[in-house]
Amino acid sequence: MTSVALYTINNSARSIARLCRASRSAHGTADFHSSVARYSTLRKCAFLPGGKWSFIIAGTRQMSQASPGRISLGRYGKSVFLVAGAAAVTGVLAAGVSHFQRAEMATKISNIEEVEGDMRERCKSFMSPPVTDIKVLEQRKDAMSTRMEMLIMETQAAFCKALEEVDGGTFKVDSWTRKEGGGGISCVMQDGKVFEKAGVNVSVVFGNLTEEAARQMRSRGKVLKGKDGKLPFCAMGVSSVIHPKNPHIPTVHFNYRYFEIEEADGTKQWWFGGGTDLTPVYIDLEDAAHFHKTLKKACDKHHPKFYPDFKKWCDNYFYIRHRGETRGIGGIFFDDLDSPNQEEAFNFVKSCAKTVVPCYLPIVYKHLNDSFTPEEKDWQQVRRGRYVEFNLVYDRGVKFGLATPGSRIESILMSLPLTARWEYMHEPKKGTKEAEILEVLRNPKEWI
Amino acid sequence: MTSVALYTINNSARSIARLCRASRSAHGTADFHSSVARYSTLRKCAFLPGGKWSFIIAGTRQMSQASPGRISLGRYGKSVFLVAGAAAVTGVLAAGVSHFQRAEMATKISNIEEVEGDMRERCKSFMSPPVTDIKVLEQRKDAMSTRMEMLIMETQAAFCKALEEVDGGTFKVDSWTRKEGGGGISCVMQDGKVFEKAGVNVSVVFGNLTEEAARQMRSRGKVLKGKDGKLPFCAMGVSSVIHPKNPHIPTVHFNYRYFEIEEADGTKQWWFGGGTDLTPVYIDLEDAAHFHKTLKKACDKHHPKFYPDFKKWCDNYFYIRHRGETRGIGGIFFDDLDSPNQEEAFNFVKSCAKTVVPCYLPIVYKHLNDSFTPEEKDWQQVRRGRYVEFNLVYDRGVKFGLATPGSRIESILMSLPLTARWEYMHEPKKGTKEAEILEVLRNPKEWI
Repeated sequence: MTSVALYTINNSARSIARLCRASRSAHGTADFHSSVARYSTLRKCAFLPGGKWSFIIAGTRQMSQASPGRISLGRYGKSVFLVAGAAAVTGVLAAGVSHFQRAEMATKISNIEEVEGDMRERCKSFMSPPVTDIKVLEQRKDAMSTRMEMLIMETQAAFCKALEEVDGGTFKVDSWTRKEGGGGISCVMQDGKVFEKAGVNVSVVFGNLTEEAARQMRSRGKVLKGKDGKLPFCAMGVSSVIHPKNPHIPTVHFNYRYFEIEEADGTKQWWFGGGTDLTPVYIDLEDAAHFHKTLKKACDKHHPKFYPDFKKWCDNYFYIRHRGETRGIGGIFFDDLDSPNQEEAFNFVKSCAKTVVPCYLPIVYKHLNDSFTPEEKDWQQVRRGRYVEFNLVYDRGVKFGLATPGSRIESILMSLPLTARWEYMHEPKKGTKEAEILEVLRNPKEWI
Repeated sequence: MTSVALYTINNSARSIARLCRASRSAHGTADFHSSVARYSTLRKCAFLPGGKWSFIIAGTRQMSQASPGRISLGRYGKSVFLVAGAAAVTGVLAAGVSHFQRAEMATKISNIEEVEGDMRERCKSFMSPPVTDIKVLEQRKDAMSTRMEMLIMETQAAFCKALEEVDGGTFKVDSWTRKEGGGGISCVMQDGKVFEKAGVNVSVVFGNLTEEAARQMRSRGKVLKGKDGKLPFCAMGVSSVIHPKNPHIPTVHFNYRYFEIEEADGTKQWWFGGGTDLTPVYIDLEDAAHFHKTLKKACDKHHPKFYPDFKKWCDNYFYIRHRGETRGIGGIFFDDLDSPNQEEAFNFVKSCAKTVVPCYLPIVYKHLNDSFTPEEKDWQQVRRGRYVEFNLVYDRGVKFGLATPGSRIESILMSLPLTARWEYMHEPKKGTKEAEILEVLRNPKEWI
């Protein structure tokens, strides 16, 4: 979970991109950074003619795949994105958001306001004013960038308020700006009654892709023509990690993001990404089933293959390779979603975002007063150590963020737990609850 | 601090090598892995004609260097090692250690036994039998690989015993083997009276460089001719990280390592690397002066430029770029040391290894009974978090180790503290002891 940062196209970024591709780590991206940078892992999502949806993944982890590197969903898409991680960006969007105002959405709905409500009214519920000035948002209220910014602000507010209600504490709200364009709103509650550390972050950034970035885009098989060599882009997302105190309440992570890039002729490339996943300390079959069922329900409204495919993608992405363990019991994860059309893709993302509270809060309430032993707390701390390992070693968004001068480190690292523990040669005894979850993490299973 | 692992030459390794080079992270290597893989960061150490010693570093961090990327010590060496990080290895040394028996040391001393003592007698003091069978060691007692293995075993034993004496606890000793050749001895004391977690690890591994690795070596400007395409190598080192409980006792890390690679005609490439550095939670000027003076004294016996140059290298390497802080108050760090001859280089490494106990133990004893507040303990935990960040995000040895299938993860990650803490937006108040050390970490200084 991180804020959005924009990436100077430099050797570092390219190298990380190569690393991502080469190390056969899981594909997809953990958070918004990923989407900004459009990592090198090869993947292409598309609704194929005849309604078949497919994607190709070249960077699958080596575990549990009969044919590593691919998740087959009927036919494979042929287009392949290469070294997109290097599509990092420098500079400031020359004319602010005006580039995007000119562009039309791929699909329009007849009356957005009717469906989504009055903009100023909606803003009143947010944790802070939106990143983009409300007047600008009103001027381009039908633009996808506006609708997505409103959605991520709403998602942040809904989740923060639900957490405040159960905890009794209050989120600290930090608005920050990025000198190259855009900014974010970081909401953090630390050492609350229920939550050890809860972070919910929104970022909305914009700027220009450099010549270097453009070259990288071309190497992905996409020839993008910029105006005077510049390709304006806009990227935004909401991301969150919640670490509760009680070891019987699981950690949750979610992230939903949107990316646009505009060519000289006004043609836009755009895509969505995101996911929600659960990291319990102990297995609770009922919790796992509730979490996955709630996600499946949201997915099934849009495509029957979304849940099974994005569930698998999630298990593949959140994989701590050196431990041979997944980070948690998964959920859904997707990236590069640009089909069947912008409206449908947005609606799917909206369904996912709106499902975060019903996915997680019932589990929090259920275990709110569970008692726990010091040994259970210790095991939680060991699992927190694993969370740190995943986030610092594998999470592409974190890696990009840390490698990017000027990115907001505190927002990137607010995903880390307040406390963690590393014991030498820690291995739970057979037959224990600790061994039970390890078995699941080593062999991901179907929950519903 | 990690065990030695051997690296399959794969995309992952290459990518990490590129990452290291490209990201302009510090040069040199944190531990033995680095030396095994001979990272891509460009550097060359040489005593130039006329006795001038020089090195070139292409990957310096961007901080505090008038001319980033270079540390000038007279003339620059011209030879440049490229993409050596990719010089990873697969397979098993076909004829065991015999390749190295045939080779002669660059410089011999007249009577090693007289200077270094009877081998079986020396082995009695070790924490476990050496990795290589004692009979094999006796057969090739004059070989540098034997002398270095004896030195690292002795260093491990001397340090462990000194720590046991002050703590009252006992090290757990794990001997492990690596199926491709060699193994190691990990000594860990966890949750002792004085030490939260103390790890002292020895590794001695051997095998063959693959064709791929050989190609990588060639791209470094070194044409290495293998027998049937194989280049036998041997690598060994001792490494340690000690995390004490009392926040007034600093963390220490050291690592000394040796690498050999043999060409078809019997020509050997070899080099040493290593360093010792201190990570206090609070600044104690007397401790810092003692630590650096003791290192300087060991260095000065061998070359007047060793201490100042290796001190700077250390500050550059142990740098947490995303925080803009060094990990600690430094010490010395060097790599690729292959001059003026093998005997002199070994003697320097021996001096360094023998200075570990006198560098650190007096500091431990001095603060043994220092009282501390919960706030001081909290600050220690925050600094522990930074230690984790450096080790998981930047330490090249750790990165290589984690990316290498089959490496001993527990030995690699025993450098992590037992506990650590991440607070959102933690910034000490001006004028506090916490702010004092942060200032030093942000602006490395001379201690003597």
